[in-house]
This record gives sequence, structure tokens and C-alpha cells, in this order.
Amino acid sequence: MKALQEKIRTEGRALSEDVLKVDSFLNHQIDPVFMQEIGQEFARRFKDENITKIITLESSGITPAVMTGIELGVQVVFARKSKSLTLQDGLITSSVYSFTKEESKEISISSDFINENDRVLVIDDFLANGQAALGLMQMVAKANAQLVGIGIVIEKAFQNGGMKLRENDVRVESLAQISSMAKGKITFVEEEALV
Amino acid sequence: MKALQEKIRTEGRALSEDVLKVDSFLNHQIDPVFMQEIGQEFARRFKDENITKIITLESSGITPAVMTGIELGVQVVFARKSKSLTLQDGLITSSVYSFTKEESKEISISSDFINENDRVLVIDDFLANGQAALGLMQMVAKANAQLVGIGIVIEKAFQNGGMKLRENDVRVESLAQISSMAKGKITFVEEEALV
Repeated sequence: MKALQEKIRTEGRALSEDVLKVDSFLNHQIDPVFMQEIGQEFARRFKDENITKIITLESSGITPAVMTGIELGVQVVFARKSKSLTLQDGLITSSVYSFTKEESKEISISSDFINENDRVLVIDDFLANGQAALGLMQMVAKANAQLVGIGIVIEKAFQNGGMKLRENDVRVESLAQISSMAKGKITFVEEEALV
Repeated sequence: MKALQEKIRTEGRALSEDVLKVDSFLNHQIDPVFMQEIGQEFARRFKDENITKIITLESSGITPAVMTGIELGVQVVFARKSKSLTLQDGLITSSVYSFTKEESKEISISSDFINENDRVLVIDDFLANGQAALGLMQMVAKANAQLVGIGIVIEKAFQNGGMKLRENDVRVESLAQISSMAKGKITFVEEEALV
């Protein structure tokens, strides 16, 4: 998605070789109109899949998931990272390991909102090591629902999450794939291919 | 907003006299099309206020805020409840006390995204004791920005947050005001007035 690459190039900042700051439109400040375009693009790619539910993870996954939900006309469920006062019974849980924080976190969704008849699209803001995606996929499996695919806004293709998922025949659609952030320069997979 | 009252009446559940579960469209599962209507309603109420920025709190405030942002054509910033890897410098912080969890939590936004020229609309999912709203307002004040008003999806009018804010001449627009949840029955302020 060219507009996203352009946005990352002009507003993103590689804080290190593997940390990308996109706080101006995705992770902290949100550009609603641009995120609407993101949702339209995910919907375009998955429109023939008869999706019945979108699952994401709070907080930065919510906006792209909801924007896709509007276009596909389906409900969105965001997995919680902490216990909620009103969400305690009938939980489907999964454990997500964070390499940056070096800790595992339990994430959960309510079994009220996903079941064996669902065809699920997982949406998230980033894909790096794939831990969050795997955690979400596990919950889809525990609910006996069918995973249709994974939509990612920005994939760090220099980490191995995307590769592992695709090797396991999971359909992964990343709207931008970064091949390198060495020396603060953001390079996309398509550009790498041209060299 | 009649459609919201109807949604709360059919899908909401009073777990106790002061805990309302609306996990099917707002706090866990999100109904994107309905939330779009919520955004349109906030935009209608605040459209003449020359708003330049919307501030909310992760996670459940994000969707109503972003939907309003689309309508008003402005950027949204969500305050974070925990430290982020890419959000460390130039933080504006505030402390929010949770009566249910009996603890204070520091929330933060980046000073990159709010300044003294901003006319700010605060959006949140719930208003009860007003602690979250006060925390967000404090950050607006610390940024020397101007608070235009507060948009709330569901106000628990039997708690005193809304009253305190209005006494301090803050414009609070709540799309649904619940006057009581005694004995599991949800009553709205308008109905109370009719008795």
C-alpha cells in the first residue's frame, strides 16, 4: 500500500534497528481518515472470505480492526491484556511473550463473542516475532472458530514472525513490509527486491 | 440518544448497582456501524466549536473518539495507561484514581501532539466519578490547550462526576444518562423525570 509506505517514510522514525516509531498516525495519535483507508484496503483483500468476526488486541490494533469491521459489516472483538471488572467468566485465554519486555502476558476474550461458526480475521498493527498473532490465533482455535487470515498494518519482515506464519499456510496480508531499518533508514521489501 | 438507550436496554446488563456490562458493543466486542452513529452524534453536538484535537484514554475510549475524529476531520490522541517503548520523552502525565481498583494509575500523552493552539474535545466511554475525565482535563491544561468540552457515551448520573464537572462550567455531553441500576433495572434520567 503506497500511501502507507509514504506515511511511514515521512512520519515514521527508526529508533533503533528494530524499533519503529509511528506515534503520529497509528500508535498514539491516530489519523482517523488515513485509518479508514487502511480499513478499506484490508476489506478489499479479504472481502470474498465471508468473514463473520474480526479479532484484535488492545490498544493499537483497535482502530484498524474497527475500520475494517465497518467495511466488512462485521463485529470486532479486542482481546484484553488485563482483567476487566465486567469480563471475568467464560474467558478464552492465551499467553503472549514480549521479547522487548521479556515477559509473558495473558490475553483474553469472552467466549460470548466467538464460536465454532465464526470465520475470523485477525488484525493487528505490527507483526515482528509473531507472538501476538500466535496468541490471537490460539484463541481462535480454542473457540473452534476458523481462522481466515491475518491483516497486519506494518510487518517487520526482517524478523521471522511473518515467515513462520506463512510457512504454516496462514494467509498474512501486510500493508507495508519493512526489510530493514539499519542506520535509521527505513527500507521496504519491494525496494530491496529492486536492488 | 434513543438508539443508544435502546442498545443499553437490550444488550446491557447491570451486574450490580454501579457496574454496567456493555461488552457486546462498546467495551470488548465493538459494533463498528453503531459506533459510527455515536461518532456522528458527538460531531453534531460539537461541530461549531472549531475543535482541532480529540483526546481519549485507552482502550474503550478509542473507538468513539476515532469515529468522532472522522466526522470532525481532526486527529485523535489516546492517553496511555502504561509506558510505551516508543513513547518516553516529552510526556505530559496525570494521575487517575480508580475507585473500583483502589489504586492510582499514571496516564500520559506525548507533548508532540497537543499544544497551546489546540481546542480539545475529550471523549470517553464512561463517566462515573469523573476521575478519568479529570485526568485527561489536567493534561489538556498542562499543555496550555483549551478544553472545549467532554463527550461521554454512557454517564452514570447517580455518581457525582458529571455534576462536579458541570458545576465547574465544563460542557459535558453524555449520549445516555443512567439515573439508577437498582435491582438490575436500568433507568435513564429522562424516564426518571417522567415519574
